[in-house]
Amino acid sequence: MKQRLNHTMLCDFYELTMANGYFQSDMAHQICYFDVFFRSVPDGGGFAIAAGLEQVIDYIENLSFDDEDIDFLRSKGCFDENFLSYLRHFRFTGDIWAVPEGTPIFPREPILTVRAPAIEAQFIETFVLLSLNHQSLIATKANRIVRSAKGRPVMEFGSRRAQGPDAALLGARAAYIAGCAGTACTQADQLFGSPAMGTMAHSWVQMFPDELTAFRTYCKLYPHNATLLVDTYNVLKSGVPHAIQVFKELGITDCAIRLDSGDLSYLSRKARKMLDEAGLPNCKITASNSLDEYIIRDLLLQGAQLDSFGVGERLVTSQSAPVFGGVYKLVAVEDETGTIIPKIKISENPAKITTPHFKKVYRLFDRADGKAFADLLTVYDETVDDSQPLKLFDPDAIWKKSTFTGFRAEELLKPIFLGGRLVYQKPAIEDIRAYCARQIDLQWDEVKRFENPHNYYVDLSQKLWDIKQELLLREG
Amino acid sequence: MKQRLNHTMLCDFYELTMANGYFQSDMAHQICYFDVFFRSVPDGGGFAIAAGLEQVIDYIENLSFDDEDIDFLRSKGCFDENFLSYLRHFRFTGDIWAVPEGTPIFPREPILTVRAPAIEAQFIETFVLLSLNHQSLIATKANRIVRSAKGRPVMEFGSRRAQGPDAALLGARAAYIAGCAGTACTQADQLFGSPAMGTMAHSWVQMFPDELTAFRTYCKLYPHNATLLVDTYNVLKSGVPHAIQVFKELGITDCAIRLDSGDLSYLSRKARKMLDEAGLPNCKITASNSLDEYIIRDLLLQGAQLDSFGVGERLVTSQSAPVFGGVYKLVAVEDETGTIIPKIKISENPAKITTPHFKKVYRLFDRADGKAFADLLTVYDETVDDSQPLKLFDPDAIWKKSTFTGFRAEELLKPIFLGGRLVYQKPAIEDIRAYCARQIDLQWDEVKRFENPHNYYVDLSQKLWDIKQELLLREG
Repeated sequence: MKQRLNHTMLCDFYELTMANGYFQSDMAHQICYFDVFFRSVPDGGGFAIAAGLEQVIDYIENLSFDDEDIDFLRSKGCFDENFLSYLRHFRFTGDIWAVPEGTPIFPREPILTVRAPAIEAQFIETFVLLSLNHQSLIATKANRIVRSAKGRPVMEFGSRRAQGPDAALLGARAAYIAGCAGTACTQADQLFGSPAMGTMAHSWVQMFPDELTAFRTYCKLYPHNATLLVDTYNVLKSGVPHAIQVFKELGITDCAIRLDSGDLSYLSRKARKMLDEAGLPNCKITASNSLDEYIIRDLLLQGAQLDSFGVGERLVTSQSAPVFGGVYKLVAVEDETGTIIPKIKISENPAKITTPHFKKVYRLFDRADGKAFADLLTVYDETVDDSQPLKLFDPDAIWKKSTFTGFRAEELLKPIFLGGRLVYQKPAIEDIRAYCARQIDLQWDEVKRFENPHNYYVDLSQKLWDIKQELLLREG
Repeated sequence: MKQRLNHTMLCDFYELTMANGYFQSDMAHQICYFDVFFRSVPDGGGFAIAAGLEQVIDYIENLSFDDEDIDFLRSKGCFDENFLSYLRHFRFTGDIWAVPEGTPIFPREPILTVRAPAIEAQFIETFVLLSLNHQSLIATKANRIVRSAKGRPVMEFGSRRAQGPDAALLGARAAYIAGCAGTACTQADQLFGSPAMGTMAHSWVQMFPDELTAFRTYCKLYPHNATLLVDTYNVLKSGVPHAIQVFKELGITDCAIRLDSGDLSYLSRKARKMLDEAGLPNCKITASNSLDEYIIRDLLLQGAQLDSFGVGERLVTSQSAPVFGGVYKLVAVEDETGTIIPKIKISENPAKITTPHFKKVYRLFDRADGKAFADLLTVYDETVDDSQPLKLFDPDAIWKKSTFTGFRAEELLKPIFLGGRLVYQKPAIEDIRAYCARQIDLQWDEVKRFENPHNYYVDLSQKLWDIKQELLLREG
């Protein structure tokens, strides 16, 4: 198995100064609860897609400081020797619950909850956020692009513009989960199983005396994977005619051409006509060149004759919205008796006020059509009984109340670690991808709009809402 | 030394299909020249900063396919067995020239040139681009932010929102090269030497019965690194008064407070006044919360009393311009006799037409004030003699000619690998950082404007211009 860098030391330095502080203040064993949640969906979309949990699991399982790490920390001159000894045997002993990868997620609901002694719970903040933020960002963007293509395959082509090697590899992984058909990146296939594909660059064509020789050489080598890049010189006067000539000459029908510049709508329609007239109706046309969900939607609206898409920088960096703002907030602590004391973080900006307490998240599906219609946050000891009518209210407009019957309630947060032990069976990537597709099918089209989507309901139970109000009044 | 993933397999799959094609077409040994260049500066700035070369060097030195890689490629069913055997002993045998990290760079000039047999030159495309694109992007953005702070230290705080672990680590490295004072990321310090710093999160304050106890506990533990986060409850009514109380109580003068929300201009001026009146004129005020170069510039224009800044997501993702568009283009090949044949890639978009040939890049500095005033691209066998007058013309407006005297010419592209051997002494990060600062000092203020900067001249020698025109006429 390929060796990767251990990321125990990929923590914000303040996690270590705080850890040392808890250690020296006899607070190391104080049990804390932290939630990961986000406040807004990138690109103004209706939902995000959770991804990055598998790397969180790997990180937690491999948490350990080696001698080199301890020596490095000692050199900083601010850590207690007893604390450094403690770190030498540090591992995660707490509990983690999380929504499975591929789940549609909404603002202000926990997507991961940690219950652990203070040092451990605080320490893992940076990596947990980094992994969920990055992959959820790319999965969310990739799924928008995949949906814009209306069933046509979308390939992730962005490695060369990715923000570092991991962004190429894990970005390809997240894109595959979210519905991309594969990636250009060979190592992403090797490590994560997103199928790698690719044929030729312009330089291949330029390396030969002429385009025809370049195409002929390629097709003889790869008669079953014959995608010819037709825009090195002139698409309609040279590229497409030469491609047709070679395909006919060699009797190749399992073939495609790729357009990488120019007006993709116009060129694809002209090329389609030429291919059809040449008796190559099965020759596919694929397009690349700074595509995203808006351009693909417009191309298809204009009748572009495109069968698949290669999407690079705008997918792998989520260029139009390159930050997923997941945060990690203290929501409760346990006192000496094990009683859970909810905590709130007040802000002058009401949108930044946290929802306190150790919580459950239920997703409610209408039994009539199977669609998800709301998420409900409850206190950890509440249970939603979906055989009984359920009264919901909008936490931002509490006079808006509705009673629901005929629904199915599903708990979203699954146990991942209990007592430091992994209790979750990591699903295969194909299963995550299939699960993601099914879950998105259960969302209303109104939630899936690219702009101004329906605002999916994330409600609080009466009990949770009461606790939040009480804390607001006390602390505010 | 920390083990990292070998990235030989981090290549676009088409590099392998082309390599296999060159191998089977007896073109494997054809010598090619590729240039890396970019077309526009992110954020509309006047220059970018080259970074990422050290990781390219590490990549080239560690290029090798292991058995697992070969088996994986074999499983794809499209590669010749002789080619796979060849890969087993694959290494880079060519030449690479590049501009040193930290150099200001401009559109349409080579920042890295490869001369190598076709397979090798084509194969390294993805990783070379990925590394230079990512780190040059972050260095360019970080330097804008550093310049906006007018000498006040800027810390990179973005790990949790970075696009993957490498983006956190290498982003912190690029930010440090470009002038940041350090990073929040512990592992970036350990691996690359960007100093890691950090003190406390809001959760530290929330973990104690009250803010005063939280502050007091912290200051007793860290009397020499006492930065207190004062916005957990109320900055002016609670945070600052409690900080003052604890600093005075413990006699701490080497201290700071951090503001992480609210109106940073207003709050910092009020806090400054309170600190001064309390006899703590040396207590610094630091700010964080979605900062970038525009917000920092505005805060300082408004008289915000801020001594340093922590900048997160907008730096580590270059949020307002998250893609650096470096490309990798064939510029020449050698024939059997070793003669260099220049190659051009025509495009309907004139900005996308490449500058052909194996080239040199000279930077011209005015001897009177030392400032850089133009870059000049020449054919590889030309030499600029800076003791003689030099006639330059604008390649986009050839009637604009000027003759220069009293200048110093410096070649920018340094040999990195020759015949596959590393001939470049990798500089220490502190030296790269110092070099970067000096080079930016040699740029005109007009080039450093954030918006609508002066368009720095990147000219072609007469000989290179003539060759380009000839190829344009022949191929166009």
